[in-house]
Amino acid sequence: MIDRLMDRIEALGCPICVGLDPTLEVIPEKMLGEVAKTFKETPEAAAFALLKFNREIIDAVADIVPAVKPNIAFYERYGLDGLRAYGMTCEYAVGRGLMVIGDIKRGDIGSTAKAYAGHIEPQPLFGQKFEIWREDAVTLNPYLGADSIEPFLEVLRVRDKGIFVLVKTSNPGSADIQDLILEETGAPLYEYVAGLVSDWGAGDGLIGAGGYSKVGAVVGATHAETGARLRELMPHTFFLVPGYGAQGAAAQDIKRFFDSRGKGAIVNSSRGIIGAWKAEGKGAGHVGKSARAAALKMRDEIGAVL
Amino acid sequence: MIDRLMDRIEALGCPICVGLDPTLEVIPEKMLGEVAKTFKETPEAAAFALLKFNREIIDAVADIVPAVKPNIAFYERYGLDGLRAYGMTCEYAVGRGLMVIGDIKRGDIGSTAKAYAGHIEPQPLFGQKFEIWREDAVTLNPYLGADSIEPFLEVLRVRDKGIFVLVKTSNPGSADIQDLILEETGAPLYEYVAGLVSDWGAGDGLIGAGGYSKVGAVVGATHAETGARLRELMPHTFFLVPGYGAQGAAAQDIKRFFDSRGKGAIVNSSRGIIGAWKAEGKGAGHVGKSARAAALKMRDEIGAVL
Repeated sequence: MIDRLMDRIEALGCPICVGLDPTLEVIPEKMLGEVAKTFKETPEAAAFALLKFNREIIDAVADIVPAVKPNIAFYERYGLDGLRAYGMTCEYAVGRGLMVIGDIKRGDIGSTAKAYAGHIEPQPLFGQKFEIWREDAVTLNPYLGADSIEPFLEVLRVRDKGIFVLVKTSNPGSADIQDLILEETGAPLYEYVAGLVSDWGAGDGLIGAGGYSKVGAVVGATHAETGARLRELMPHTFFLVPGYGAQGAAAQDIKRFFDSRGKGAIVNSSRGIIGAWKAEGKGAGHVGKSARAAALKMRDEIGAVL
Repeated sequence: MIDRLMDRIEALGCPICVGLDPTLEVIPEKMLGEVAKTFKETPEAAAFALLKFNREIIDAVADIVPAVKPNIAFYERYGLDGLRAYGMTCEYAVGRGLMVIGDIKRGDIGSTAKAYAGHIEPQPLFGQKFEIWREDAVTLNPYLGADSIEPFLEVLRVRDKGIFVLVKTSNPGSADIQDLILEETGAPLYEYVAGLVSDWGAGDGLIGAGGYSKVGAVVGATHAETGARLRELMPHTFFLVPGYGAQGAAAQDIKRFFDSRGKGAIVNSSRGIIGAWKAEGKGAGHVGKSARAAALKMRDEIGAVL
């Protein structure tokens, strides 16, 4: 998975991931009104609007970006209808040749983590195997420790899949726990977690031909110094870098999350791309066009500094 | 929610929660075979078997325990079919008068956490509000800090709901990050997180008449010393204590998670109760009976030490 991702990034010259995190605020009222005619004013209608919106975005960016990252929370809020839209969004993106990073941030004790690994592994049932979810990679939360990650590593050893473990997140609250200084190291917790993630990713069969592991890290774009430091500490760990654009990080800072060859990271923007039509004061017909223009602009901004 | 939970515990004399974490290993083959006749050999059949199994457990314990705790991972692994079974399990339990703690362990940045809060808050759509999920409380992961919890606190201030934030989990891997010693305090990270959780729960309108907050903590039964220490540090925080039985904690240790009045905690057992029929070498007809007997035994064991 990691080599496939790196190859696509290189082929497109575009280390960018589009965050498919639609809220009703970024979906044109007209689109919502149209689906409500078919599905009535129900959660099913809202979910179908999310899917319809995502398809427009995907169609508009599929030939210029390597990956999308739907955050499952924005679908789970609408229950089964929403989760169906999540699954169909993943399928649609895969069908359009995009890689899908499922932003699920799961984490649980070993036996339960094994169940969550169903996101990237077929489930055995009645002597058969069923591919339930369609993500190429998922994000995970490390708070529960190694045994919460191990069932995923087992999958990675035999399948073309990936994980990105939270190390330092992009939000202000990331300081509350992740920045705490440890007695043993005199350094922040997130650096220690970085060490764990790096070790987890160093095992047999996990490092790809491009020198990066199937076990990646989430490192928020909003912390440039931290990005540079973690890049040093984790030479074989690919970074998923959220927080570009709407959350405040700029291109000049982004360089520090990449290695000296300009590789090793993919930068995510959600609202900056999917909400571009609205930020520009355009109408419902511009969702795709504005998203494409925003993605191209971001590609060029980042390309200019790498 | 917290007063309601405490009242039920007292009325039943039973501070016990039944973990509804079914795997195909604890579901009788006969039950699985029967549903496969209706639904063919599909994930839908597996999901319906989970639901059918849960209903038997719920029917068998509804008059003796105050709450159940389905862990969503065991349903999510089967996709939409599984998640439908999760939702129907929650509904069925509520219908039988049980309180439902959704073990979802979610955690994300503020705007996304707001979406996850849909588990305990109706979603506004088309000028109406839709109650999507049915949990009375959910578990949350604190790694992303205060802004990942705040959207839930907003809900708790106005609704009869609760959260339990992971502080020290029951698994061996909990040591990897949660036990790290902080420079500032010379104490483990989980104690610092305990302080945050205690503070989050101290806000206006969050402490119930019984002296405990709607913001609870998950503290694993497998660490008795830790339980005692956290009980001291968090006098107004109700504990959800997983890891009893199959994970190795015994009744004698459990006392330390409770306050001097024998209140302030609810102890969860999953496999020890739902897998009792199998551990006893009984047949498919004993799922409910064995679960009830195991729950009564656990109630008496814990009652004897409180």
